[in-house]
This record gives sequence, C-alpha cells and structure tokens, in this order.
Amino acid sequence: MPIPTVDEANRFLTETYPAAASSGVRCESMNERSAVARWTYDATQLRPGGYISGPTIFTLADSALWFATFTVIGIEAMAVTSEMSLRFLRPAQGGDLIARATIQSISTRRLVGTIELWIDGTPDLLVAVAQGTYSRGNG
Amino acid sequence: MPIPTVDEANRFLTETYPAAASSGVRCESMNERSAVARWTYDATQLRPGGYISGPTIFTLADSALWFATFTVIGIEAMAVTSEMSLRFLRPAQGGDLIARATIQSISTRRLVGTIELWIDGTPDLLVAVAQGTYSRGNG
Amino acid sequence: MPIPTVDEANRFLTETYPAAASSGVRCESMNERSAVARWTYDATQLRPGGYISGPTIFTLADSALWFATFTVIGIEAMAVTSEMSLRFLRPAQGGDLIARATIQSISTRRLVGTIELWIDGTPDLLVAVAQGTYSRGNG
Amino acid sequence: MPIPTVDEANRFLTETYPAAASSGVRCESMNERSAVARWTYDATQLRPGGYISGPTIFTLADSALWFATFTVIGIEAMAVTSEMSLRFLRPAQGGDLIARATIQSISTRRLVGTIELWIDGTPDLLVAVAQGTYSRGNG
Repeated sequence: MPIPTVDEANRFLTETYPAAASSGVRCESMNERSAVARWTYDATQLRPGGYISGPTIFTLADSALWFATFTVIGIEAMAVTSEMSLRFLRPAQGGDLIARATIQSISTRRLVGTIELWIDGTPDLLVAVAQGTYSRGNG
Repeated sequence: MPIPTVDEANRFLTETYPAAASSGVRCESMNERSAVARWTYDATQLRPGGYISGPTIFTLADSALWFATFTVIGIEAMAVTSEMSLRFLRPAQGGDLIARATIQSISTRRLVGTIELWIDGTPDLLVAVAQGTYSRGNG
Repeated sequence: MPIPTVDEANRFLTETYPAAASSGVRCESMNERSAVARWTYDATQLRPGGYISGPTIFTLADSALWFATFTVIGIEAMAVTSEMSLRFLRPAQGGDLIARATIQSISTRRLVGTIELWIDGTPDLLVAVAQGTYSRGNG
Repeated sequence: MPIPTVDEANRFLTETYPAAASSGVRCESMNERSAVARWTYDATQLRPGGYISGPTIFTLADSALWFATFTVIGIEAMAVTSEMSLRFLRPAQGGDLIARATIQSISTRRLVGTIELWIDGTPDLLVAVAQGTYSRGNG
C-alpha cells in the first residue's frame, strides 16, 4: 500500500477529528511504519505557569500513532485506540510539541506502537513517552 | 485533613486548569479517597458520528483522579500526573460523560488510583477504565 | 453460566499452567466477576532482603484476573492476557501474597479488570495494583 | 560512568535475583542506554502447547530494562521497577526469548524505557512490547 501524503493525512484529520485539528495538531511527516506530529504553540491553551497540559500531550501522542497506522493500513481504514499508557517525564513548556510514533507490531486485529514527545528544539529531553494499541475494525 | 467542597474544587479547576473547565469538566462529588467528575455534553466537541473523543475521555479521567487526590492531600498541594494507562472499551456517545476515581494507595511520594467512565444513565456499560499515578512534589 | 468451583479452577490451573501452580499460586475464592488468588509464602523464591519478586507479583495478578474471567465466560474458554499495566507500590515481604481481581467490562472480544495485591493481614497496604485486558479467542 | 561488562551484570543478577538467573535469564549485551537479555529455552517451564508463559515474558522484559539501567547509573545503584505496561502480541514458542531494552528518559528520580521481545531468529515478529519506569532510590 502506498503511504498517504502528509496533506491527505491532514485533510482526513480535519474531517474526522476537527477538534484536534483546530487545537493546532498537524501531521508533519510520514514514513513506513512511523509518523511525526506537531502541536503548534498556542498560549491560550496553556495551564498557568505556561505548561502544556496533559490532554494536549495525550491528543498529540494519539494523533501521531494514528498517522503512523495510515502508513500500514491506509487512511480510510477504521482504526481506533484500544488502550494507551503514558509516562509524563518533565514539564512541557516553551515551544511547539513534537511527537514521533513508531509502529512495532502489526497483526490482523491490532497495531502497537511507541510514541516519544519533546519540545521542538530539545529532542533529547523527552517530556513524555507512551505506548498504545490501535484496533482494526470494531474490536 | 478536611475534604474540600465541590465548589472549592471547581474554583481551583477554573484557576489552574481553565481549558478543562471551559471544555465542560466539573467536579460533581468528593468523598474520602474518591471523586466523581462530569463532562457536560457539548455537540461541538464531538467527532463525526457523535463520538466523544479520546482526549475528552483522558481529560475527564485525569481530572477525576486529580479531584480525588484533593481529598487526601488537600487542594493546594502540588500533585501532577506521573503516568496513566487507559483502556477504551466501547464508543462513547449520547450524553454527559461521568468519571469516578478511587485512590487505592497513598505514600509519601505517590497516589495511585483507578478510574471508571460511563455515559450518564448507563453506569453498567463502561466506556473506558484507567489507572494512574499522581506524584507529590516534583517527582 | 454457573460459577466454577475453586477446586475446578485450581485443577485447571494445575493442568494448563503448571509452573504457576507449582510456584505456590492458588485460587482462593470466586464470585460473580471477581476472584481472589493466593501465593503461599516460600522463602526459596524470594530476592535477597526477603522481597517477593516482580514476576511473582505479575504471576499472581495475572492468575487472579484469569480466575475472575472464569466466572464470566467459564473455565474452558480460551482467554489470554492481551495487555497489563502494573504499579509497584511498596516492598512486598513477610507473608503470603493475596490478589483480588474484579472484572469491570465485558464485551464479545475483551474482558477488562483491575487487581489489587497485598500481604496477607495488611489489606490496607497494597503492594501493587494492576489493570489489564483478557482477549477472548485468538485476538 | 563506564558501562559494566556483561559478566558483571550476570554476576549481579545471580546474587540479587537468583530466581531469574536459575530460570534461564542472562544479560547478553549492553550498550549506552540499552541492553539485550536472553531466556534460554527450557521445555520444563512451558505451558501446554509449548507456549512461553506471561511471567517468563515479564521477567525477561523487566531484567532487560534493569540491565539497561546499569549502563546509566551503574550496577550497584538501587533501582526498582515502579510501573510497567506490557502488550502481548502473539504466541511465544519454539526457541529462546530475546528482549532488547532502550532507556528513553533519565531524570534524578526515574528512568523510563521501552522493551521489545521476540523469539530468537524472528526479530520481525515481536511477541510482546513493554514500557516501564525504574525508580532510583526508594521512590
């Protein structure tokens, strides 16, 4: 299956997940079994102290893994988050948030991947890591 | 320590987590080691098909556990989500979302709790369950 | 479906999971949607300092949830652990280990439950909590 | 800090985690922030059907992450598993089990890493993936 383009992924995001798109989430790049997503810094969504919130981190992690599933099963396929575990490592502040998701396992019913998140410019200081499962079809 | 009132919890939410408050999250009740939170149905935040999104579910689960920590360590104490795992069980649609969090373990550095989420009126059909850790101080 | 007896559960454990049985794991009680399992204290399995090991904790948590699934789908049904997250809360030492599992969600493909573990005699001092998914059939 | 040798890691395993060592777990290699561990196939530990059990998978995943922490904080330092989430992806059978752990985040109190597990010879067919936290000191 050909990997969808970033434009196709973002168009699909806007159609099927408008709240994520309007909050500033975008697909940035896609490769075989992986994707990078970006949340563009928006001071109005921050918590006091300038911290990027847990839900923003969850949304971007989940979106990145979703984009990564597109590279394996295509963009129209129905895949939904089945479970996800997240570790919040350090305060996230001061810039765009980046998430890179990598698919580690593909079976007929599930895709499992790992996500790393950091503030743009400091990829060595992860603010969160996550691992989760997307279920194909209605499982 | 006296358990804070629901009004105090919601005032604190509005001050320190305005995005959650403005998205419709509220504390509904608090008891020793537990709390119930509600997300008031808002069609503009739904995904196509009328589904309540994963980030809304994460936000309410996280808020409910946060409210529950208030009943143990007080409302002003600094406690941050350290990790959380969520299982998405069935589509969430058609009403307010309710989350009940229960603290299962308290130590000097961590509080651990479990959260159950359902659509108001159907408490036997959980839409998600989660378990997570709040870290006291900067851990 | 009638709830299997504890003897039936232990016989099935010995047949299909002999390593767990021979390490000291037993089903202790079963009720609708829940089960209690016990690991009988055995000094030869401890880590230096007298600590019950992580794998022993995992084994008992997983067994307890497995017993609990018997009360919902029967004892012969094929159900396998699909995912589990565990939080280790305090050192486990000095007695039998007890695990109580409760099923929170049942669907055609999955059962999800929460497990609490403690040293016999101190149920208020949980040594670990876990949450996990059993998959029905080969999922 | 110099990376300990594999022999040092295995000596420490035998001393402080004899049950893991005697069940067939060994450190195989260590590099900066990562380690590979092996469970040598032993038919007496299998479940009926020849399946490697969940506890064996947990033990090897946990050991691999523990070895990986040695490369960051040294071999004598006290680090204990704080939490771990595991996804079981396909039946594990027919050979040695291999686990590769990579540390993704290091802070004063925690190390977080991801683990991939496969049967020796088929590294593209992961049997499980996990992600977990080691706590430094008594956290």
